[in-house]
Amino acid sequence: MSFRNLIDFSDIPEKEWDEICTLAADMKKNPNRYESACAGKVLATLFYEPSTRTQLSFQTAMLRLGGSVIGFSDPNSSSVSKGETLRDTIKIVSTYADVAVMRNPVEGAAFAASLYCRVPLINAGDGGHLHPTQTMTDMFTIRQEKGSCDGLSIGMCGDLLNGRTVHSLSKALSPHCGNTYYLISTEKLKMPEYAVNLLSANSNKVIECRTLDECIDILDVLYMTRIQRERFTSESEYRSQAGIYILDSKKLENAKKNLVILHPLPKVDEISYEVDDDPRAKYFEQAENALYLRMALILTLTENYPDRLPIKGDKYDFTGERYCKNPVCVSNHEKYLPKIIKENNERKFCGYCERDVN
Amino acid sequence: MSFRNLIDFSDIPEKEWDEICTLAADMKKNPNRYESACAGKVLATLFYEPSTRTQLSFQTAMLRLGGSVIGFSDPNSSSVSKGETLRDTIKIVSTYADVAVMRNPVEGAAFAASLYCRVPLINAGDGGHLHPTQTMTDMFTIRQEKGSCDGLSIGMCGDLLNGRTVHSLSKALSPHCGNTYYLISTEKLKMPEYAVNLLSANSNKVIECRTLDECIDILDVLYMTRIQRERFTSESEYRSQAGIYILDSKKLENAKKNLVILHPLPKVDEISYEVDDDPRAKYFEQAENALYLRMALILTLTENYPDRLPIKGDKYDFTGERYCKNPVCVSNHEKYLPKIIKENNERKFCGYCERDVN
Amino acid sequence: MSFRNLIDFSDIPEKEWDEICTLAADMKKNPNRYESACAGKVLATLFYEPSTRTQLSFQTAMLRLGGSVIGFSDPNSSSVSKGETLRDTIKIVSTYADVAVMRNPVEGAAFAASLYCRVPLINAGDGGHLHPTQTMTDMFTIRQEKGSCDGLSIGMCGDLLNGRTVHSLSKALSPHCGNTYYLISTEKLKMPEYAVNLLSANSNKVIECRTLDECIDILDVLYMTRIQRERFTSESEYRSQAGIYILDSKKLENAKKNLVILHPLPKVDEISYEVDDDPRAKYFEQAENALYLRMALILTLTENYPDRLPIKGDKYDFTGERYCKNPVCVSNHEKYLPKIIKENNERKFCGYCERDVN
Repeated sequence: MSFRNLIDFSDIPEKEWDEICTLAADMKKNPNRYESACAGKVLATLFYEPSTRTQLSFQTAMLRLGGSVIGFSDPNSSSVSKGETLRDTIKIVSTYADVAVMRNPVEGAAFAASLYCRVPLINAGDGGHLHPTQTMTDMFTIRQEKGSCDGLSIGMCGDLLNGRTVHSLSKALSPHCGNTYYLISTEKLKMPEYAVNLLSANSNKVIECRTLDECIDILDVLYMTRIQRERFTSESEYRSQAGIYILDSKKLENAKKNLVILHPLPKVDEISYEVDDDPRAKYFEQAENALYLRMALILTLTENYPDRLPIKGDKYDFTGERYCKNPVCVSNHEKYLPKIIKENNERKFCGYCERDVN
Repeated sequence: MSFRNLIDFSDIPEKEWDEICTLAADMKKNPNRYESACAGKVLATLFYEPSTRTQLSFQTAMLRLGGSVIGFSDPNSSSVSKGETLRDTIKIVSTYADVAVMRNPVEGAAFAASLYCRVPLINAGDGGHLHPTQTMTDMFTIRQEKGSCDGLSIGMCGDLLNGRTVHSLSKALSPHCGNTYYLISTEKLKMPEYAVNLLSANSNKVIECRTLDECIDILDVLYMTRIQRERFTSESEYRSQAGIYILDSKKLENAKKNLVILHPLPKVDEISYEVDDDPRAKYFEQAENALYLRMALILTLTENYPDRLPIKGDKYDFTGERYCKNPVCVSNHEKYLPKIIKENNERKFCGYCERDVN
Repeated sequence: MSFRNLIDFSDIPEKEWDEICTLAADMKKNPNRYESACAGKVLATLFYEPSTRTQLSFQTAMLRLGGSVIGFSDPNSSSVSKGETLRDTIKIVSTYADVAVMRNPVEGAAFAASLYCRVPLINAGDGGHLHPTQTMTDMFTIRQEKGSCDGLSIGMCGDLLNGRTVHSLSKALSPHCGNTYYLISTEKLKMPEYAVNLLSANSNKVIECRTLDECIDILDVLYMTRIQRERFTSESEYRSQAGIYILDSKKLENAKKNLVILHPLPKVDEISYEVDDDPRAKYFEQAENALYLRMALILTLTENYPDRLPIKGDKYDFTGERYCKNPVCVSNHEKYLPKIIKENNERKFCGYCERDVN
């Protein structure tokens, strides 16, 4: 594998993504083959904000590979963060473990940690920024259910403005072609322009909708997300609008027989209870796939990078300069971090949180 | 085994209970024989309210069988419960694990969860309702120490009105015969009528006492529980009464040489420190027995039910009707739950919390 | 080994300390040799106050030996401490585990617990009193880097009045000889007299300094600790003084090439970021050594004391007398504890917290 750390889904080259999918699919079919694959290895789960679902899934992944797990899950009862730099914590924990998973409420924290981590590091969410193993799960499930991620009618429904998962999914889908995307949301919560641009690359079509009913009959994939009550201007607007974005049996009557309904979970009331038993509902399979993908990722990284990096000799120089205007960027929280600016086409952006600089 | 989930002690038919006791006794004698019995299996411990003792004991049970453990213990730092239904949580966690243990402050929660759990589920306490592995421990310890649960003089002392353990124990003892029960409590905290009826079934005698001293000389078994200070009407009543229900060396002078003193633990001050070293004090052995019974239960369930149930196809239909008047019944908290009413003799009761309906 | 429990570093006789160091060094070199050494054994980590670093390190130690871990880390979400005596908790947990580690905010708690623990108990910090595995780590690292702990110029810098680690280190260094100690602190935060006396035993020299610059050129070992901002009388005093005790590249220009810089970690700003990459900075190696020493300790204790003690028959008698004036002494918190007074030369001290009695 060309990547030692998984910070963003785009870290995985296409060919290597194929290999991970093949491995995950085999793990799903033949779990017993892998039950000692990581024997003697230790995974550290560093959860600076609680996320029980994600943490349980990573823990299970390592245990099913025969390895073991250390870590913390509660920012309050944890003394790790009290005054100590992220750098020191990561240096020490990566001295104990063979692979690390980190969730952190600060944007760019996973990339920052990877600069000092002696073992492979997996990003399990850095604020509203990235959550690549969720994106892997989404892409893998579409691929498993539909054969590929090309030539499809894909709906995304809910709060498209604030939803981290749909933005990441848009970025991951961007290189695919022959797709039509149906973006179903209120005017106020519509997909940001940059994400629309990602989807429409490679001559894909993008169509905005205001109701699920307008497009549900032509969708091959429907990716549901929640609209939080507080996103609506008023309680009366909520009551009049919310039903439009709730998926129920009635709306599904017009849908294709082989529609694939996805949801990153947890869901609250955006999908009616009875839909769970519809054969087209695949979100629980999606949650199961998450386990196998995380197993595949952990095994791949520990096999490819078995040696701990030396504790000295960081790659970048500290300059002391503050340059990123994003207040929740890790570069403004961990003050020793080197200045890193990346360029892409005409864009200059922060190497941690990826927001535009200048 | 005829039961896939252990929700109530009465789920276990007598013959199968014999088998579990035999297995637990062998595990206590020959622990090494079982050290790989659950190798590769994962136990999920889902503690919606903290109970360190119970959780440590279940974790140890699985680890001593060679398996491993995932789970959460803190309702506050857990994102699992945030808005997500119990049904969704259970469906997903039971996709990861091979067997699950749940503690929940809501009555009937374990039975509700079992409707959606893909693997065997063990109830580790659902509010003030049931805690069957405690009852198993109590029954097993009496059996180990006395040969059987018949033909004995059994005292139960303390807060018999509010004590969940003594109610469950009464239900479990109900089919046994030849016993005399001494119920030792204040008038205000005496055993509820339904539990007295359970004990007096099969021609057993029930005698109410107001002091330990009245009956301690004829007891074969004494089951102690705590009376919380706030149960007394006033501080002066507490001071005058409390000593009557505290077991100390002096009261034990009149007791039989082979009395068996039990307590569900933790205890506070209802048993004097010096009693711990009395050979008749068996409550620490009781706590040890809990470990072996949980090992026996986990092994039995995972061996008998190795296959995960499909994620679709719930057994019951959702009606939307609210029918149970118990405000802490799970059916009033998880609104998608199907209406379940059970009948027994002339009684109609809620299938979740078992309180009378109408 | 002559000690079943590790409460204080002085519990380890010199010859046995040599054996532990040899074992830890071999574990560092050949970790694979030990990967099943504790297979089937269970470590209980009982953290009555959070200390993520220490807990992760003990957990990793047991997992790297092939054993498994139970425990709790959060005093608030733990029901263990609710009203139950430390004695009952320890009796029961030590029925589940093969070895236990305890951290507790109360002084003398580890020794008190060891009176009732059925398996070997390791003290991982009892309030401001003792933290012997930290001292082991410090002593082992000096020995590894310098060949021995004799004939050295050793600086200790920072808050020497309140620092538990420097006091314990002073006690551990006391039997060594040919050393000169440089105690670098403000007048207000200087080392207490009793610790100076320990250091100056065996004709060692003790020199007090007010700045790092005065002595940094002659040091072989520099043990850094933090001065908390609130220890200074005023903000202006803090600003004028703090820099004097911060280690940076500039101060290191005058230091020996083979200086060994230690720190118990976590550090905040008492060492500048750039020092981390200096080859003389050994505090991350020190943190790594902690892992191997804890592995060596766990293996040694479980091998030497494989049998669980009986649950009855405590060594000491309860008298009910309160005799220790230290309000944070465990004897004033756990009221059943026997009175224990120890004598040493002319000193009479409490057997739990070791403060002078009358």
